[in-house]
Amino acid sequence: MIIQLQQGIPDDAKENILSKVKGVGYKATEVKTQEGHYLVAIGKKEFDIRTIGQLKGVADIYRVSDEYKLISRKWRVEPTRIDLGDGVVVGEGQFSIMAGPCSIENERQIELVVEHLKENNVKIMRGGVFKPRSSPYAFRGLGIEGLQMFYRICRENGIKIITEVMQVSQIEEMIDYVDVFQVGARNSQNFNLLDSLGEAQKPVLLKRGISGTLEELLQASEYIFSNGNEKIMLCERGIRGYEKAYRNILDLNAVPVLKEKTHLPVIVDPSHGIGLRDYVADMALAAVMAGADGVIYETHQKPEEAFSDGQQTLNFKESERLIRRMRQAYELRESF
Amino acid sequence: MIIQLQQGIPDDAKENILSKVKGVGYKATEVKTQEGHYLVAIGKKEFDIRTIGQLKGVADIYRVSDEYKLISRKWRVEPTRIDLGDGVVVGEGQFSIMAGPCSIENERQIELVVEHLKENNVKIMRGGVFKPRSSPYAFRGLGIEGLQMFYRICRENGIKIITEVMQVSQIEEMIDYVDVFQVGARNSQNFNLLDSLGEAQKPVLLKRGISGTLEELLQASEYIFSNGNEKIMLCERGIRGYEKAYRNILDLNAVPVLKEKTHLPVIVDPSHGIGLRDYVADMALAAVMAGADGVIYETHQKPEEAFSDGQQTLNFKESERLIRRMRQAYELRESF
Amino acid sequence: MIIQLQQGIPDDAKENILSKVKGVGYKATEVKTQEGHYLVAIGKKEFDIRTIGQLKGVADIYRVSDEYKLISRKWRVEPTRIDLGDGVVVGEGQFSIMAGPCSIENERQIELVVEHLKENNVKIMRGGVFKPRSSPYAFRGLGIEGLQMFYRICRENGIKIITEVMQVSQIEEMIDYVDVFQVGARNSQNFNLLDSLGEAQKPVLLKRGISGTLEELLQASEYIFSNGNEKIMLCERGIRGYEKAYRNILDLNAVPVLKEKTHLPVIVDPSHGIGLRDYVADMALAAVMAGADGVIYETHQKPEEAFSDGQQTLNFKESERLIRRMRQAYELRESF
Amino acid sequence: MIIQLQQGIPDDAKENILSKVKGVGYKATEVKTQEGHYLVAIGKKEFDIRTIGQLKGVADIYRVSDEYKLISRKWRVEPTRIDLGDGVVVGEGQFSIMAGPCSIENERQIELVVEHLKENNVKIMRGGVFKPRSSPYAFRGLGIEGLQMFYRICRENGIKIITEVMQVSQIEEMIDYVDVFQVGARNSQNFNLLDSLGEAQKPVLLKRGISGTLEELLQASEYIFSNGNEKIMLCERGIRGYEKAYRNILDLNAVPVLKEKTHLPVIVDPSHGIGLRDYVADMALAAVMAGADGVIYETHQKPEEAFSDGQQTLNFKESERLIRRMRQAYELRESF
Repeated sequence: MIIQLQQGIPDDAKENILSKVKGVGYKATEVKTQEGHYLVAIGKKEFDIRTIGQLKGVADIYRVSDEYKLISRKWRVEPTRIDLGDGVVVGEGQFSIMAGPCSIENERQIELVVEHLKENNVKIMRGGVFKPRSSPYAFRGLGIEGLQMFYRICRENGIKIITEVMQVSQIEEMIDYVDVFQVGARNSQNFNLLDSLGEAQKPVLLKRGISGTLEELLQASEYIFSNGNEKIMLCERGIRGYEKAYRNILDLNAVPVLKEKTHLPVIVDPSHGIGLRDYVADMALAAVMAGADGVIYETHQKPEEAFSDGQQTLNFKESERLIRRMRQAYELRESF
Repeated sequence: MIIQLQQGIPDDAKENILSKVKGVGYKATEVKTQEGHYLVAIGKKEFDIRTIGQLKGVADIYRVSDEYKLISRKWRVEPTRIDLGDGVVVGEGQFSIMAGPCSIENERQIELVVEHLKENNVKIMRGGVFKPRSSPYAFRGLGIEGLQMFYRICRENGIKIITEVMQVSQIEEMIDYVDVFQVGARNSQNFNLLDSLGEAQKPVLLKRGISGTLEELLQASEYIFSNGNEKIMLCERGIRGYEKAYRNILDLNAVPVLKEKTHLPVIVDPSHGIGLRDYVADMALAAVMAGADGVIYETHQKPEEAFSDGQQTLNFKESERLIRRMRQAYELRESF
Repeated sequence: MIIQLQQGIPDDAKENILSKVKGVGYKATEVKTQEGHYLVAIGKKEFDIRTIGQLKGVADIYRVSDEYKLISRKWRVEPTRIDLGDGVVVGEGQFSIMAGPCSIENERQIELVVEHLKENNVKIMRGGVFKPRSSPYAFRGLGIEGLQMFYRICRENGIKIITEVMQVSQIEEMIDYVDVFQVGARNSQNFNLLDSLGEAQKPVLLKRGISGTLEELLQASEYIFSNGNEKIMLCERGIRGYEKAYRNILDLNAVPVLKEKTHLPVIVDPSHGIGLRDYVADMALAAVMAGADGVIYETHQKPEEAFSDGQQTLNFKESERLIRRMRQAYELRESF
Repeated sequence: MIIQLQQGIPDDAKENILSKVKGVGYKATEVKTQEGHYLVAIGKKEFDIRTIGQLKGVADIYRVSDEYKLISRKWRVEPTRIDLGDGVVVGEGQFSIMAGPCSIENERQIELVVEHLKENNVKIMRGGVFKPRSSPYAFRGLGIEGLQMFYRICRENGIKIITEVMQVSQIEEMIDYVDVFQVGARNSQNFNLLDSLGEAQKPVLLKRGISGTLEELLQASEYIFSNGNEKIMLCERGIRGYEKAYRNILDLNAVPVLKEKTHLPVIVDPSHGIGLRDYVADMALAAVMAGADGVIYETHQKPEEAFSDGQQTLNFKESERLIRRMRQAYELRESF
């Protein structure tokens, strides 16, 4: 059950509601976000919700039977739109393109990618500075200095930044230099990280786990929302399977199903989803048609020389063609 | 190694080639199809293929290192197009729609679906008369009488028929009443059935196994081709996975990858691929954008009353809208 | 609902029961096996089963809510034991070992394996003569002549034969030369084959599908039973998964769960279950401890020269040690 | 390449080695653990390792071609044994039992479990105080106070503690109260946590990821070792699959394969591996026979009243019987 409180509700009114909620045997969690003030009440007993709905300070009240609550579309029908500033908005009704290299490598590389994005009117650049790697001996990214360089060049060019955060202690050092925190597949159920990102107020793109269910993804996003941050995007990035012909199984079934279950935007990552350069564009276009609100993919001036993921990275020519086609596909989709 | 023989090659020339092939330690399989006459030679030794290429009666010779040979695009670059008669062609450059109920139920039902297809200029109707069912006590289809009725009505209306064949002994009784034999996911590696369909000369739509790899699907189609039948379509219909939010995982990654590996047409079945009516259209459109040569889906005049698969079957209004949109998406895709 | 009929029930009594069953809206399937005579009645209405239970000719009546009926342990508590003759019995309370090569190759090979089995008091030999192969160009087995040779040598030495049947038309030619028909993973839902094996009366070992669920395996065995054959063994042989370190995932969870759900014996195939010789023995021993009624594995006089599956085949020394250890493990298990 | 340094190697000798390693184009990581001092050198060039092997301060040098190095059995043949004090040792040649509730609930519960363990001579108790939960609204454990209570009671009774750590910041507050840190399946690739546990010097039990490969598990353990901590146990706890009859697929194939690849002890968790109480004992016994060095399972005085995981938790009577049987099975296994 979600109880939406009136903005500026007096403490005594809130306490009164909490006490009534407790009185019917429910456990309430108070949630205060950028946008609103809620109580999430969990319990099993049936009762007439109007007895709480008519209390002073209650703006509205809803029953939500799913395990996730605040991110459910059953409660909030209107889609979430996330404003990154300067007119860059992610969410239903927009088509967002996020592109860039797997890893940030150096100043020259960032400049080349930024130039490519500007030429194609793409507003959000991806690029990793903290890299999760299977082996402890592999390149782990340029770290915070790399991020600061990344930030400086992007700011000068009006480009927003999305980059991966791997642990709680990085949030504080990164927060001034990112526009969207990305949570990778391996951290999709790192609940402490999700809690902290909920408190951090910056937009978060949350990837589905390597073999994550949609239910787990939705509950993971509920962690962020219930800690105070409504600015969440979900990302389908391929799941692990038995097929050896590609790196992952891009599960586009997830797109329309997530769109129905939640008001959050749904982004697709075809680069990790198939893992082979030649097919990334086909899968990106398929994602648009399946109803994605955006696509995040890897591009690099010379994929064959990229520090990581070169085999699934588009060169600028391929990237440019894909951008044009995705926009056409999105336009067609919107016309339906 | 594929040795393409000249049409009408004299027996002694063929024997000479076979003996030379044997001489280099290769084992040859002779393949005679509707379209050509080939020897598939399997062996490991390296040798100069021109020594065989210049023999009398050899039209051409190719090395193919894949486990599958005749269906490989490395050998035959030109896409296979399958002519069902009356101008109905399946294959690259066309977009084929195949629609109809899961099971054929009665005359009235067939007539209603046929009418719906005609109104929307759809030329191929699907409908099962022999149904593979998990339980021995479930409805197993109307059988051969149902097929004859299905055939009569479709012929009167210029509609082609695709329907599932489950065993070798059914081929003969069915062959006069079908335009395309469908092989279901559970029979995807029923090698005896594939052998016999190779001899049967009617077009075959071969579904990927429930957890089939692309390699297995391609090799299964090689069974059909190497037994004499080039008229094969492959079908992605979803694979089994851990996700409980839908029936299967529609693996659209398979579409561009199959299109590169083989010259055979690739069809997608979004009905089984997601298994939930509300999302079938989204996945069908995504399939088109991923590069499918056609879509096969379930429609019924009253899905909620269908004998089987009602939960993934579109009503005629949904079907009509989907047909229109798929054609627009295909047109956009072709313009790229 | 299972209605067990009295042996030799008069036709009019049976018709009377059928008519009463129909009267309560149930659909009945008559099943006559080597052991008994049953009606399986499927329907949804609640009614007092005693009204049928007290009819003339009814020996007993049971409600079974599972999708499978006759093979359910809820109905028949006593385990099925399958007598292969000469004192060779498969089923709970016995520990059955079935060993031999993947493929029957020649007379000498059969003699060597038979000798090895006799020395170790193993009574059942496996060996394929019809081989399902992914590629149409691979070795498909020695066929019926190979089986006849296999049969002759085994009969002379008191060894029982288990071998794979791939299609309906092979049953008749094989039936005089086999003691147990094996149905492979790829045919686990080849329903026509299952139907025919139900009529064939010879014992059947049914393997779980490549990604088969236990529910599917149980329903597949119901096909055989409901067509008249109670002599069924189930076989866990590994399922397909993402792990690349071995060929399949041997799912020993299936053993205790199947043992609870059905009265049929459960056999484990560790050779296919892990696919790597060095670990076959460990997994065989684990299977015994998990509660398997038997183990089927591959052995060959020279695994490295075997026509197929050499990488997962034990040599005779490894086989001998495994046999001894499995018997010790089984003895310990039985002492619990 | 692993270069084992002599204990107390002078700095200049070490610098000399490092410079030589760099000179052949390799990148070296220095690793100093409780047990030894190593350089792990990664590179591709072939060269004669004796040129480095004979340098002053080098105790030994090995080529290891796997992605993981220090935990590889190719390098260190002798199994790792982890001494928890008071004669409690985990590792090959011992059979370790770790039992206890999913969650620590209260003093009385701890006392009852401790008493049960003492009666059965079990030396290690499991119990969660920080619980990873899919939903943010679920019970997350008693936290550090719970751990302190857990510690006090166990210390008084000579019982060692294993409990889950979820994030870097918990390590410091927990370290004085735990004997083994457990890393859960969801954190199996939380690389920052692994890094920090490498520095923490307490033994670590690392669970395989929800769909983790063995390769990933081994590389994850390399993170811990290469940060300075050799005291690592690996744990197979079931992987995610399509089968709905149980919670996870306990992949016992992993046991003998891991035992061959690494010198670290391998523990099996049958409670999570099958997730259903009735079958936990069967799978625990199978794990012993597959070669596990220990078993960790859930037990509670009243499973039906447990705060979490009650459906897979044994009562004390079941637990007692299992302990006795596992020891008999282990004894048999050791006799082989």
